[in-house]
Amino acid sequence: MDLYIANKNYSTWSLRAWILLKKFNLDFTEHNLKLETPSFIVALENIAPIAKVPVLVDNTITVWDSLAICEYINETYLSNQGWPSDPSHRAKARALTAEMHSGFNSLRNQLPMNIRANRKVELTQQSLNDIARIEQIFSEQHAQFEQQGGWLFGEWSIADAMYAPIALRFKTYGILLNATATAYMDKVLSCPVLAQWIDDALAESDIVRMDEAGVEV
Amino acid sequence: MDLYIANKNYSTWSLRAWILLKKFNLDFTEHNLKLETPSFIVALENIAPIAKVPVLVDNTITVWDSLAICEYINETYLSNQGWPSDPSHRAKARALTAEMHSGFNSLRNQLPMNIRANRKVELTQQSLNDIARIEQIFSEQHAQFEQQGGWLFGEWSIADAMYAPIALRFKTYGILLNATATAYMDKVLSCPVLAQWIDDALAESDIVRMDEAGVEV
Repeated sequence: MDLYIANKNYSTWSLRAWILLKKFNLDFTEHNLKLETPSFIVALENIAPIAKVPVLVDNTITVWDSLAICEYINETYLSNQGWPSDPSHRAKARALTAEMHSGFNSLRNQLPMNIRANRKVELTQQSLNDIARIEQIFSEQHAQFEQQGGWLFGEWSIADAMYAPIALRFKTYGILLNATATAYMDKVLSCPVLAQWIDDALAESDIVRMDEAGVEV
Repeated sequence: MDLYIANKNYSTWSLRAWILLKKFNLDFTEHNLKLETPSFIVALENIAPIAKVPVLVDNTITVWDSLAICEYINETYLSNQGWPSDPSHRAKARALTAEMHSGFNSLRNQLPMNIRANRKVELTQQSLNDIARIEQIFSEQHAQFEQQGGWLFGEWSIADAMYAPIALRFKTYGILLNATATAYMDKVLSCPVLAQWIDDALAESDIVRMDEAGVEV
């Protein structure tokens, strides 16, 4: 398989697909494209119908969009282990995943992922609402599943892939959560697979201006 | 099952979940909430963690977000028939579905669904790009699968649910597409299940000001 992704410092959707493949030890070749460069468009124009990452190419099958990639991988290679096995947990995991996939726009605009930075941003009420909702998700799920592994639904699942970039954003912008939500965040941030992504991000030097929000602290 | 939806004239995400249940003749009770009213919040606050529709309640399982509902229904009641059976078609159907779920923001902002109206809107370049991409999707998929049923992947699937509101928007705002894309749009607009939704929308009288875009033609 080939996975086309963008700058690890900035590209949250790339991270979501990448971490799923890594967590389940699937073999793939990583293609690192650079946001806001002509080669980004050129690399994708013969592969996918839209110039967005991530894109997964698996022989004759091309899948774009992080969530579609996760469902494809889950179905094709994971015998449904990408989601929690309990049907009610699986339904909730898909709801939380979809909520991230289409929502939290204010937070996503105000707090772009920027792993290398430590910043402060004046938050709008809408962003505060987004943060409060995420705090609720992290703390409720971590409390419920602490004894079963401590991920959002106990064992690591696609839902955790979807929320991984949030922990990195909160770290960059110094967003503090309650103790239970923080315990989940700490779990995310100490994950060895994520550490590998972070190392790669720290080794990058390209600047994507639109994702350079806030002031240095 | 109970499905909580909003005004049929305006609520595109409600339509997506509703039409899937109807197309597969699943038994459910419809709860019609009104956008921008206090009762909307009250009705949902003991049911779902966020005040958005659609929400599906199936005994002890609550699912919010249209895409999560579609995946839940597909898995629980449709033995995967909600998606195309061919793996490569299924992967592409999920990609197109995800593309709609998280994208086309300019089009969605400029051309809100408003089934009762006939309007004209000054389109931004971004909206024109969104329309061009949808024209590409409609025409390519309809051309490829015309002999197998004429829906996006031949037989009707969740991908068609996702794009159904687009046909209604294009009708309201007089957006013209090429002949093959128009043939797909005509197929959507002449679907008897959708006709039932449209009749209900025409019978509503509530006005949601933020969705009243453009000038009358």
